[in-house]
Amino acid sequence: MKLLNNTLSIFALGGVNEVGKNMYAIQYEDDIVVIDCGGKFPDESLLGIDLIIPDITYLEENKEKVRALVVTHGHEDHIGGIPYFLRKLNVPIYATRFTLGLIELKLDEHRLKRDTKLVEINSESRIELGKIEASFFRTSHSIPDCLGIVFHTPEGNIVHTGDFKFDLTPENNQHSDIHKMAEIGTNGVLALLSESTNAERSGLTPTEHTVGEHMEEAFMKAKGKIFVSTFASNVNRVQQVVAASIKTNRKIALLGRSMINIVSVAIERGYLNIPDGMLIGSNEVEQLDPGKVTILCTGSQGEPMAALSRLSSGNYRDVSVYPGDTVILAASPIPGNERDVSRIIDNLFQLGAKVIYGSGSTTGMHVSGHGYQEDLKLMLTLMKPTYFIPIHGEFRMLHHHRQLAESIGVENGNTFIIKNGDVVDIQNKAARQTRQIPAGDTYVDGMGVGDVGEIVLRDRKQLSEDGMLVIVITISKGDRKIISGPDTISRGFVYAKNSDDLLKEVNRLTKKAVTDLQKENVRQWNVMKQTIKKSVGQYLFEQTRRRPMILPIIIEI
Amino acid sequence: MKLLNNTLSIFALGGVNEVGKNMYAIQYEDDIVVIDCGGKFPDESLLGIDLIIPDITYLEENKEKVRALVVTHGHEDHIGGIPYFLRKLNVPIYATRFTLGLIELKLDEHRLKRDTKLVEINSESRIELGKIEASFFRTSHSIPDCLGIVFHTPEGNIVHTGDFKFDLTPENNQHSDIHKMAEIGTNGVLALLSESTNAERSGLTPTEHTVGEHMEEAFMKAKGKIFVSTFASNVNRVQQVVAASIKTNRKIALLGRSMINIVSVAIERGYLNIPDGMLIGSNEVEQLDPGKVTILCTGSQGEPMAALSRLSSGNYRDVSVYPGDTVILAASPIPGNERDVSRIIDNLFQLGAKVIYGSGSTTGMHVSGHGYQEDLKLMLTLMKPTYFIPIHGEFRMLHHHRQLAESIGVENGNTFIIKNGDVVDIQNKAARQTRQIPAGDTYVDGMGVGDVGEIVLRDRKQLSEDGMLVIVITISKGDRKIISGPDTISRGFVYAKNSDDLLKEVNRLTKKAVTDLQKENVRQWNVMKQTIKKSVGQYLFEQTRRRPMILPIIIEI
Repeated sequence: MKLLNNTLSIFALGGVNEVGKNMYAIQYEDDIVVIDCGGKFPDESLLGIDLIIPDITYLEENKEKVRALVVTHGHEDHIGGIPYFLRKLNVPIYATRFTLGLIELKLDEHRLKRDTKLVEINSESRIELGKIEASFFRTSHSIPDCLGIVFHTPEGNIVHTGDFKFDLTPENNQHSDIHKMAEIGTNGVLALLSESTNAERSGLTPTEHTVGEHMEEAFMKAKGKIFVSTFASNVNRVQQVVAASIKTNRKIALLGRSMINIVSVAIERGYLNIPDGMLIGSNEVEQLDPGKVTILCTGSQGEPMAALSRLSSGNYRDVSVYPGDTVILAASPIPGNERDVSRIIDNLFQLGAKVIYGSGSTTGMHVSGHGYQEDLKLMLTLMKPTYFIPIHGEFRMLHHHRQLAESIGVENGNTFIIKNGDVVDIQNKAARQTRQIPAGDTYVDGMGVGDVGEIVLRDRKQLSEDGMLVIVITISKGDRKIISGPDTISRGFVYAKNSDDLLKEVNRLTKKAVTDLQKENVRQWNVMKQTIKKSVGQYLFEQTRRRPMILPIIIEI
Repeated sequence: MKLLNNTLSIFALGGVNEVGKNMYAIQYEDDIVVIDCGGKFPDESLLGIDLIIPDITYLEENKEKVRALVVTHGHEDHIGGIPYFLRKLNVPIYATRFTLGLIELKLDEHRLKRDTKLVEINSESRIELGKIEASFFRTSHSIPDCLGIVFHTPEGNIVHTGDFKFDLTPENNQHSDIHKMAEIGTNGVLALLSESTNAERSGLTPTEHTVGEHMEEAFMKAKGKIFVSTFASNVNRVQQVVAASIKTNRKIALLGRSMINIVSVAIERGYLNIPDGMLIGSNEVEQLDPGKVTILCTGSQGEPMAALSRLSSGNYRDVSVYPGDTVILAASPIPGNERDVSRIIDNLFQLGAKVIYGSGSTTGMHVSGHGYQEDLKLMLTLMKPTYFIPIHGEFRMLHHHRQLAESIGVENGNTFIIKNGDVVDIQNKAARQTRQIPAGDTYVDGMGVGDVGEIVLRDRKQLSEDGMLVIVITISKGDRKIISGPDTISRGFVYAKNSDDLLKEVNRLTKKAVTDLQKENVRQWNVMKQTIKKSVGQYLFEQTRRRPMILPIIIEI
């Protein structure tokens, strides 16, 4: 994009009109600061895709201007894209102690730690990034050590909230710094970027503390083993499980790689307190009195390979669920995961477990980490921004957030609902949204980043629905006689052993197409292949109502 | 199964441990009566499958004993399998007038109407089916003309509830016949089969009537066009939309094939009352004052090809959603559909519509047709069965339903939680569950019924994730020299144009595998193919972390 003097630009590369892959940036002349670099899980239509990350073409084209990646907190939708980002842009990463711990786990996996500059910050830090300075404030969320950011620019102050709710009685002293937020508001906020996840939900988010009370109650009643499945990164909830286990004299085992890794980081860095000797190995579980064990496990979203799913189908090596055991699902299913989660619940019931499941408001075992409407209004009120850019959410959430801003006095025309790639330029305190930079989804598939596009996905879709049929025929170079074949090989289309007649007719139609064309003296391979495809495809559709991918292969000898 | 004299057998061929494809049967000696024949929609793991229907092997093997298919009501999970059932077993179908209307739509589509004997019954009918007699009672549900069934057998009376709730103020006079149910209970019920869909939900289902009140309120407020999306078969809800439209002086257009078909059946057969001249064509919508039109449309479950989805993406031929229009989603998303539904809602917001969405209890625009716990307890209390078989639901629902039965006095040991295929035998009033008959999922894919099995699905899965690679090589018969190739064709794996080096190496490895084997004088095609697969597969996984299906084709000339 054209360099604009004395202009402050704000844009999203991911996170608006979607839930996931958050990435925002602000630019003042030659300095760009990037906020977060998240991943997003593909829906079932993106066959074979492992992860979606933001398209960072613009940042690559302006490599020399990118001063830093500042990370607000350690959730996947804020850090999941970092390894891919670093391969293109090796800039320093600023984050809090716990967030850095989670980023380091990721960099270890990708063998990127040695070459990356990681800078630990806290809410009192102030960092200089070219003409942009950043200071911070603490927020409460469902993971420890979250930050909101104030960017001090020559044009004015820009606030990015990160993810937040206002929890006045959080666990582990993870308070929102309301006094500091008030001061930031008093000093003047030119533009506020605030998260919108729960902008559709009225009221104030319940405090995490209530979960602890319900947890303790359930622990008091339970007789057998207790399994608790939750996000490993929800360290404060893990702490409450620890507290309930202490009260009921239970030891704790951890199941699942991410549970073990993240709990280790949390303990090492001082965010989680587990008394010595309380943690046991999964191999010790079955040796103890069932009433003396708590098992913390991954898989609350129904992930088929995670611990809870394997437990529910009796496929976990060391540990089994027995009649009389209690299983607590201390997380709500993310939209799209409901069916997988309910399959697991059903299996657990079949094993005879008492399962505590359902929405958090029913069971009391889960509260959201994202502020509801009253939380969002409190943030807006504290910050009193001139301009407002709702971020982090689907369009309807941004839309509702705009209405909340209006209700506390932000002029409707001063709210910008942007798409990924839209740029809001502010010059002399006047904001307008006219330009766009490249933005979109980059697909990660195995080791490939961005190499799988529409064509490959379209082929996968066709293959997934009706399979395919390869037809090979060998033709002599001179007289163009059929020397061998046609032979057919099908996969995912019909069960070949029961489809003799069908495949014989395919061979006959192929032969006919080839000889007919030869009579007309048509010699182009492409025409020949198209003719075979059409004739065979039509026949197969009539016979089966399926449209397998047909691949005619003509070999000339 | 062995014929048991003086024994009454009850079994499920579909509908327990699942939601969908309901099919139950009772047998007394040489007489079998089948209840319902439903379909079930596949989840995303069943690639390319269109519908799941019950495995009816047992009925086919006992063809001459099957006296009738009795259908409780016209929902897809109770009638969706009928066309496939009829192709194997041409038995008479007994159902109410409205249910028959929906079955006939289906038979028309499959060209089966002429050869099928359809018998209209009502709640006062009594039919003789060999040694089994059937009488009926009316229930309330989310579709008109529902029946519960009493089977009078030499061993005692068996009651099948169908789907029901107790709605004391239903629309269109679709009352539950509580007096008759009480009488049935008084006469003695040996075994009760009762539906379990909402056995997890406490309280009593709200009446359909409340929806009408909320609908009217929303209609009063709306300025532009009003779109209401709901299940077409929920005729009573459609009637309430008609009522609100009359009050606000709006004409009604119908969008979507099933909306048009089912509304026609309902009008013709007297279940829906729309004043003359009130229905307009979709092509007339845009000509009228937006404040004077209601549009009833399909697609409340987010189905991508249905009317609502096409409206939300601006792809409906005659009708568009404009800013200021109101869209009411008068149905809850079925688990698994949440993501598709929320995508549509988001698109509608982007078009500037006011969208009324969310759970029925929040919006008031939807109530369930399935009884909650208090409804289920009322049925159990009225019937006072000796034996209880909870049906129609996942295991956890059946489990909860058993607890409800216990709470009103059914001995725990007298409740049978069965799987599809389990048989409950009752002889001299003593019930036991020891035998099993074949049962399971039969997949419908295009015109194929049951021909797609595990192998085809496993291939589709591999193809869907990483695509495939065909490698063709031609070898001379005599000296086994490579005459042509190897040539590679990939689909859904990598974008071939950018993968020259990768595919070159595949060719080299293939050549090497072939020549190495020839040196060792290995001549079996299978060994050769396996060696190529292994060598190429390993290389590709190292390079890409993908596992495409590899199909080596060796042609011998």
